[in-house]
Amino acid sequence: MSGIADVARLAGVSKSTASRALSGSGYVSEATRDRVSAAAASLGYVPSTNAQSLSTGRTQSVGVVMPHINRWFFAEVLEGIQQALLERGLDLMLYDAKPGTERRRRIFEDFLARKRFDGLIAVGLEPEQDELDTMLSLGKPVVSVIGDQSRTSVVTLDDSHTTERATEHLIALGHREITFLGAGTHTRWPHVESARVSGYEETMRRAGLERHIAHVPSALTMPAGYAAAVDLLSDSRSRPTAVVAACDEVAIGAIIAARRLGIQVPAALSVVGIDDHEHAEMFALTTLQQVPRQQGATAVELLMRQIDDPGAEPIAVRLKPRLVVRNSTAPIVPASSAAVADGGIVPYA
Amino acid sequence: MSGIADVARLAGVSKSTASRALSGSGYVSEATRDRVSAAAASLGYVPSTNAQSLSTGRTQSVGVVMPHINRWFFAEVLEGIQQALLERGLDLMLYDAKPGTERRRRIFEDFLARKRFDGLIAVGLEPEQDELDTMLSLGKPVVSVIGDQSRTSVVTLDDSHTTERATEHLIALGHREITFLGAGTHTRWPHVESARVSGYEETMRRAGLERHIAHVPSALTMPAGYAAAVDLLSDSRSRPTAVVAACDEVAIGAIIAARRLGIQVPAALSVVGIDDHEHAEMFALTTLQQVPRQQGATAVELLMRQIDDPGAEPIAVRLKPRLVVRNSTAPIVPASSAAVADGGIVPYA
Repeated sequence: MSGIADVARLAGVSKSTASRALSGSGYVSEATRDRVSAAAASLGYVPSTNAQSLSTGRTQSVGVVMPHINRWFFAEVLEGIQQALLERGLDLMLYDAKPGTERRRRIFEDFLARKRFDGLIAVGLEPEQDELDTMLSLGKPVVSVIGDQSRTSVVTLDDSHTTERATEHLIALGHREITFLGAGTHTRWPHVESARVSGYEETMRRAGLERHIAHVPSALTMPAGYAAAVDLLSDSRSRPTAVVAACDEVAIGAIIAARRLGIQVPAALSVVGIDDHEHAEMFALTTLQQVPRQQGATAVELLMRQIDDPGAEPIAVRLKPRLVVRNSTAPIVPASSAAVADGGIVPYA
Repeated sequence: MSGIADVARLAGVSKSTASRALSGSGYVSEATRDRVSAAAASLGYVPSTNAQSLSTGRTQSVGVVMPHINRWFFAEVLEGIQQALLERGLDLMLYDAKPGTERRRRIFEDFLARKRFDGLIAVGLEPEQDELDTMLSLGKPVVSVIGDQSRTSVVTLDDSHTTERATEHLIALGHREITFLGAGTHTRWPHVESARVSGYEETMRRAGLERHIAHVPSALTMPAGYAAAVDLLSDSRSRPTAVVAACDEVAIGAIIAARRLGIQVPAALSVVGIDDHEHAEMFALTTLQQVPRQQGATAVELLMRQIDDPGAEPIAVRLKPRLVVRNSTAPIVPASSAAVADGGIVPYA
């Protein structure tokens, strides 16, 4: 059986470089990593992680804590993390910590305390204060995906910017009666939700459309968006001409609701989402694109940086989304606009 | 710091029983496990998995290999597995092995060979022969979820039974022109797909409806089901009165397509799915319910059984789905039935 020395010899590098290249820890150039990987592959060399752990004190694993798996955003982030860890030869320990469950309590109280990982990535956790304390008290690097906090490195979307762009897009198309649909149920991601709502409100204010500010709350799912949109759209007198949705799932729920009510999208109603969800194309949805897979990969990069240099200051990476224009938004038809009256919509308190 | 001896003393059991209860390995009654857990919690005892590994030769981890995370079925199975592992104090190592990727090759060639787990659960992998050989050669128990193979224990749906029941339901409502929508693209789960198609075909034959057998292939996603259904339904002369969909995502795609084409569901078209997907209720979908979360939990049980008794014979658990009748299926209206002619549908070859 081949050892690390054989791999190093074949690749023409030192043993420590070969080891660094295979373990993914410490700096190695891309070219060297490829050469060492090729040498390892040709020799059928499999690093013994137990031996690696003994020599480096590392577990060669990264823990990922997330409140959901079965949601587009979370699954995509997870795939991005998995891919980036795999490239570095690291295992992924998954902790599915749904809020308010006994399972979540056990993860924080028992599982994390075992420290079977070199670092933690917390995805969309919005941890309680004591949960964050628990994570930081482990003495391992922690990186957050989504969130608004300075105690860990963080990768996040510039949330208020997303709805600013969405609202500006609709205003540029001539819309005035623009309602914000979704969020505001204050259950899960308060920072995300309030930043998206305020990005919309500020843009409306800046455009002198203060009196048209309206927010219909809904959870961030397709069925919830559907139900909220049926309420919003069923009275033709109070119906807006355009909707900024808090995310694509809510936007798709709104499009399905509009179709059921016989309202043409985009002729009679423009809808813009946030995400570029896997189903956005099917509904021809105009949206602000985020790439959660890339957020996962970036989180791994930030984590490796802190594993290699535990004293490094936390970094915040704030991503700007790209506007993808499809066929759910269109210029307003002035006549139909005049026929739409105000009122009946729950104002955002 | 408290040790296992303190926990055992407080719970009034032997050290080995306390250890079994906390590690999740070996038989311990529910009541004893609860008592030991409570004792451990009150003492703030956290088992050292390294020490456990040294004494038992176990890693206290289970590897989960799946081709997708971002699909309802897979995410639900994963949650079921996670919950069941957590109850046993075991960690979950996730390997996301999308077919045909370099990542998948590396997982099978490098990652699994490290054997950082006590057993493997392969979810919907339909592994290539050499991949299955690799998994079995590790000398660790392997349990499959979905699949048709005798070399590992397996938890699976009785797939032909699902479409038998779906087809019988439609026949009982008076339908004759019943088309099977979805599957047959032969890319992913050939066993699942062919069993579902043949359950439909055999039921049609038994009912003397051979000449109405028709299969429109499509991948098992909502957008693919939508596109296939637009083709199937757009010609009113050749349109069937009912559709058996290969899964709920395809069924929902078909319902959305029908709405776009102005075809009333269920008045002019009945649709039945398989899954009871999280969106089934929103579309009032009649479906054959499977509970993937429970399949995940059962897979963990089968795996623990094999970890405890490596000589045990593989077991196959084949689940029967339950028919959930909602509002996407209705008795056929004889007049409209007579107006629908045969022809134009791609027969299943």
